[in-house]
Amino acid sequence: MNFEACNPTRLIFGAGTLAQLGEVTSRYGTKAMVVTGGNSVKRSGVFDRAMASLKAAGVATVECSGIEPNPRITSVKRGVDIARRENCDVVIALGGGSTMDASKVIAAAALYDGDPWDLIGHGQENWVIPPQALPIITVPTLAATGSEMNAGAVISNDETKVKSFVSTECLFPKVALVDPELTLTVPKDQTAYGVCDIITHVTEGYFNGVNGTPIQDRFAEGVIINAIEWGRKAVADGNDLEAREQVQWASIVALNGWVNAGTNFVPPVHMIEHALSAHHDITHGAGLAIVNPAWMRFAATSRPERFAQFAQRVFGLSPEGKDDMTLATEGIDAYVAFLKEIGCPTTLSEVGIGDELFEQYAKDAALVVHDADGNLLGRPAMSRDDIVEVLRSAQ
Amino acid sequence: MNFEACNPTRLIFGAGTLAQLGEVTSRYGTKAMVVTGGNSVKRSGVFDRAMASLKAAGVATVECSGIEPNPRITSVKRGVDIARRENCDVVIALGGGSTMDASKVIAAAALYDGDPWDLIGHGQENWVIPPQALPIITVPTLAATGSEMNAGAVISNDETKVKSFVSTECLFPKVALVDPELTLTVPKDQTAYGVCDIITHVTEGYFNGVNGTPIQDRFAEGVIINAIEWGRKAVADGNDLEAREQVQWASIVALNGWVNAGTNFVPPVHMIEHALSAHHDITHGAGLAIVNPAWMRFAATSRPERFAQFAQRVFGLSPEGKDDMTLATEGIDAYVAFLKEIGCPTTLSEVGIGDELFEQYAKDAALVVHDADGNLLGRPAMSRDDIVEVLRSAQ
Repeated sequence: MNFEACNPTRLIFGAGTLAQLGEVTSRYGTKAMVVTGGNSVKRSGVFDRAMASLKAAGVATVECSGIEPNPRITSVKRGVDIARRENCDVVIALGGGSTMDASKVIAAAALYDGDPWDLIGHGQENWVIPPQALPIITVPTLAATGSEMNAGAVISNDETKVKSFVSTECLFPKVALVDPELTLTVPKDQTAYGVCDIITHVTEGYFNGVNGTPIQDRFAEGVIINAIEWGRKAVADGNDLEAREQVQWASIVALNGWVNAGTNFVPPVHMIEHALSAHHDITHGAGLAIVNPAWMRFAATSRPERFAQFAQRVFGLSPEGKDDMTLATEGIDAYVAFLKEIGCPTTLSEVGIGDELFEQYAKDAALVVHDADGNLLGRPAMSRDDIVEVLRSAQ
Repeated sequence: MNFEACNPTRLIFGAGTLAQLGEVTSRYGTKAMVVTGGNSVKRSGVFDRAMASLKAAGVATVECSGIEPNPRITSVKRGVDIARRENCDVVIALGGGSTMDASKVIAAAALYDGDPWDLIGHGQENWVIPPQALPIITVPTLAATGSEMNAGAVISNDETKVKSFVSTECLFPKVALVDPELTLTVPKDQTAYGVCDIITHVTEGYFNGVNGTPIQDRFAEGVIINAIEWGRKAVADGNDLEAREQVQWASIVALNGWVNAGTNFVPPVHMIEHALSAHHDITHGAGLAIVNPAWMRFAATSRPERFAQFAQRVFGLSPEGKDDMTLATEGIDAYVAFLKEIGCPTTLSEVGIGDELFEQYAKDAALVVHDADGNLLGRPAMSRDDIVEVLRSAQ
């Protein structure tokens, strides 16, 4: 059990905290670039309220709108041009995971002279670790990626169809200003995909981490139990503020380092999903809902006792009279039932992905984190054939 | 659910990490004051290893030894004199909670012109919030107070018999260098008191926090379950490194903000215990072992359902056929049985404290955090009579 942990982001959490955006931003800069995604923040009035708060605090603004889902490096470059031209000294991400991830890389690339793509990509030969970034403030409008309070960003290259990620110290937001009221208008399907994303962040560490992390196990189980309980409520009634709060809080702790401290895991399910969503514009959380159960059935065969613990502690299933593999399978079945209940797809056919590119996905998935033989890291490590097998089982 | 959270301390955790002390310290200063408590770090060879690491990294050192249990403001003043005279630019706390707490206040007081006692004391009329501090590096040799990764310090005034605390941003250590090997030589009784301290940090938030924190509930229960399981093992066999690791990790997360985020609690049990240990030199953890169960029986009468949840989730007790109060009492009984099993005192008579000063303790306990009527805050708020009643029940 040897590890380092540090998360310097200041979290300001609570309904109504959007009103603090101006004051908070003024601690870090005088001209903010406000990065947004689609039009939902404008339709909901959130954008106007954010701008009003900034104006009241004397912070000048310029907008960088239109960050797409699965954000592209071309959007990052567009943001960098704006930030430089307008002399922005602070970046505000007002949106979902895509907006936050793009904002982080824009903030770093604005201070880097080379090609922004240099800054992305574990696995790239010429990877330049971003040394510095403009101050970043995240204001999430969706509970899903956990990007609001961590140093990670996932960016796609539209030319090469590579989706890769960067995570480094300078990308920690200075402040995560998290107002769960902003998620009240998120539609049912996106709410469900977000819940799936949250749970998958936790299961990745839980099933792929090192042995001997019993406190982290309990933290992980606690987040999953609550993401299921409150996620169900948030999907059923989008206006349930308490449910939105709990799901938002689950999103944060799922990936801010608290649950996964010391687990030292590699996320194979994310790697496989990224390979899919680099080729098909599916929502990340929906892709995870398809890949994760298939992966779990595959991984359970090599470590049934771990999946049996999951079944027992998360779903309260009784171990009596069952071997580990039976209990493990019951737990995975219960998880799939939950995903279906909240309306997530659980097969590739539901999202229109066929088997034509299975070999390509398998190759792409293992591109970044692999062992000496090219196997995708995780528990167990996966050959390309293993990945194809998992994808076939998800058809 | 509105709150702020931020813990910028960098945690370096693991057996053998003491060897990194020099390199880590050199990032923050060139001349370190090494603060220590009794002679145990010298007997164990830890002090020499720390000094060798510092020397190898080119960090000059001066020592401030002899910080006593329940550290006094006079020791802080002594440390400040040394730090100034020797132009120290970084403070290393090599010891237990007392050493770490004193080091934090020394680091702040070294940069403050007035009386160091000004910097202590919520409740003091002329409290000066420490605005800055020398960089602090904590190297705990005991798993107990959680001081290694938080911004708090408890300091006693030997003249006035007031024991008070300060917690503010600048007191966060830059680095918590946590090497569980350093705790292998901690004797059985101190190990047990440490376990009790850890558990009490968690129960304070669990029983006195706001409603509606289901994820934090699970985190808290997870820490307590593991502190019991691994604490039992660490007490039984001090050389069990895995047990030492888990107890040390429990110590950190119990009070670094992760478990208690958003619970917004006031710790009445600590307030009562501080009143006792300001007058009697008992180990803080031992005092908590006496006060906490007595307080729990008192508090359970006003919120039995919460204590029933504790009984069920932490001790796995079955609720079948029982009302909440019965289940609550069974849980508290189980907790007392655990404390006795690991050798903690659970009555005042065991540590030689009579009832002569009960009224004084009650007054002192409510000095710092009280409502408009002078009642000690917590769930429920406690009048002086309530506090005396709890103390009587602990005789």
